[in-house]
Amino acid sequence: PPSARMPIAMAVPKSGTRSTSQREAIYTEIEDHLRKAIPKPPPVVFEPMHHLTFAVPQGTAPALCIAACELVGGGRDQAMPAAAALHIIHAAAFAHENLPLTDRPEIRPPVAHAYRPNVELMTGDGMVPFGFELLAGSDDPAGENSERILRAIVEITRAAGSQGMVSGQYHEVEYLLPSGRGRREPEWADHVWAKKEGELHACAAACGAILGGGAEEEIEGLRRYGFYVGMIRGMMARGDGRREDGGVLSTVRDMKKLALKALEGFDQGKVEAVASILDANMC
Amino acid sequence: PPSARMPIAMAVPKSGTRSTSQREAIYTEIEDHLRKAIPKPPPVVFEPMHHLTFAVPQGTAPALCIAACELVGGGRDQAMPAAAALHIIHAAAFAHENLPLTDRPEIRPPVAHAYRPNVELMTGDGMVPFGFELLAGSDDPAGENSERILRAIVEITRAAGSQGMVSGQYHEVEYLLPSGRGRREPEWADHVWAKKEGELHACAAACGAILGGGAEEEIEGLRRYGFYVGMIRGMMARGDGRREDGGVLSTVRDMKKLALKALEGFDQGKVEAVASILDANMC
Repeated sequence: PPSARMPIAMAVPKSGTRSTSQREAIYTEIEDHLRKAIPKPPPVVFEPMHHLTFAVPQGTAPALCIAACELVGGGRDQAMPAAAALHIIHAAAFAHENLPLTDRPEIRPPVAHAYRPNVELMTGDGMVPFGFELLAGSDDPAGENSERILRAIVEITRAAGSQGMVSGQYHEVEYLLPSGRGRREPEWADHVWAKKEGELHACAAACGAILGGGAEEEIEGLRRYGFYVGMIRGMMARGDGRREDGGVLSTVRDMKKLALKALEGFDQGKVEAVASILDANMC
Repeated sequence: PPSARMPIAMAVPKSGTRSTSQREAIYTEIEDHLRKAIPKPPPVVFEPMHHLTFAVPQGTAPALCIAACELVGGGRDQAMPAAAALHIIHAAAFAHENLPLTDRPEIRPPVAHAYRPNVELMTGDGMVPFGFELLAGSDDPAGENSERILRAIVEITRAAGSQGMVSGQYHEVEYLLPSGRGRREPEWADHVWAKKEGELHACAAACGAILGGGAEEEIEGLRRYGFYVGMIRGMMARGDGRREDGGVLSTVRDMKKLALKALEGFDQGKVEAVASILDANMC
């Protein structure tokens, strides 16, 4: 078929500017929240933390967290600390995965380093606890949301930790290394994207629903939706190993169907913000 | 004075074996808790995580957390997840501060590396969220301890983050680097030890008291005690910059008095376990 050799970025119709700017507007709010929250002094800490937080390419998980919260009837403020924590963790992971280490020379396209490796390592190390502090500290004075916050913390620790995102990062590097066992098969890519993007987006959507007071079936529906959104994001960004390009697109289309199916139980008049994040990852 | 050139480790009387083994017994329990908690599969994650968790030199903060909880009348189980989290965070920090980076060649005595740098970096990155998961997940089914757990999470994120332990690690490395500005004055050492040990032990003791249901003045008394314990630990391990050795010992003796003063409000029949941790750091 003609699409078999077409670059992935051109083969899927661009989403409308409306949904893209909706996501960007949410992201601007998340970044504003972080700008106010990052502690100012001393500059030796603030400057690299500020830089690494805002220089990273935006993810879609934080915006999905906010949109999921609003879909189940919650207010944006209820999910903002979790969205900010997800962004901080994403930024710290990006900094660490681009650190120059002796055993991973030039495995990725080089990124610009504004600081020395020791500063970037330590700054990333400080950012992760800060993300959890934002979330744990958002407990309201009456403590009525404590259970939800603790549940969101457990969700995020699992998705970000050694069984989640870190496992994806680890396997991606092992694969990219010259000594890698050349596991360029679809199963490898599926695992990396499930861990780095799928489960992280699933967690983001579930946390938004938890913090917004969603029912269990809403939480699980949004979790499924988030998983497919993340998988599509990963596949569109990097392909899926040695599958033909046409195979990628076919997989992506199947996943989009499954993603939208996961939203069927929701009021279709209100799903636009959540659904727009799917489109943002397909362009 | 004759003590001025005496190695620090010999200049202070050893504490009795009784208090040392009390602390070791507590630590064994903390390690058992972690052995059961670290997720087993897959081995590629489990093995380095297990190694880095148990190869690190023991700290005293986790044992202090447990002892503080028991001093205010709490049960050991109430503080165990926080103590385990403190140990995991300590172990991850140790792994990262010993990573070979291009801009910090040979600044420390070399440690044995069981894994490649990328594996140690990623494993440390996975351990920190796991520590917070242990703590957040220890919420009891009725949710009656949620407020205390959230408060302990905020305490630990602050003590471990960019304003706390990471700041101490950062300044220590900047100082150890050949290009360091040669800040070998006591103020430098005070800052490093306050951040790396003082505030971390203060947090550990406060968390134990919070989780054990201590009153606010008990929490603050144990926080002060913990701070001096940590400062003494730092100074005994590495000295305090260019102060004469005799000056270090004099400072340590002053701090020991302040530490014991912070325990005055407690039942003196019950302070032994907590006080023994001070002695453990003086030998």
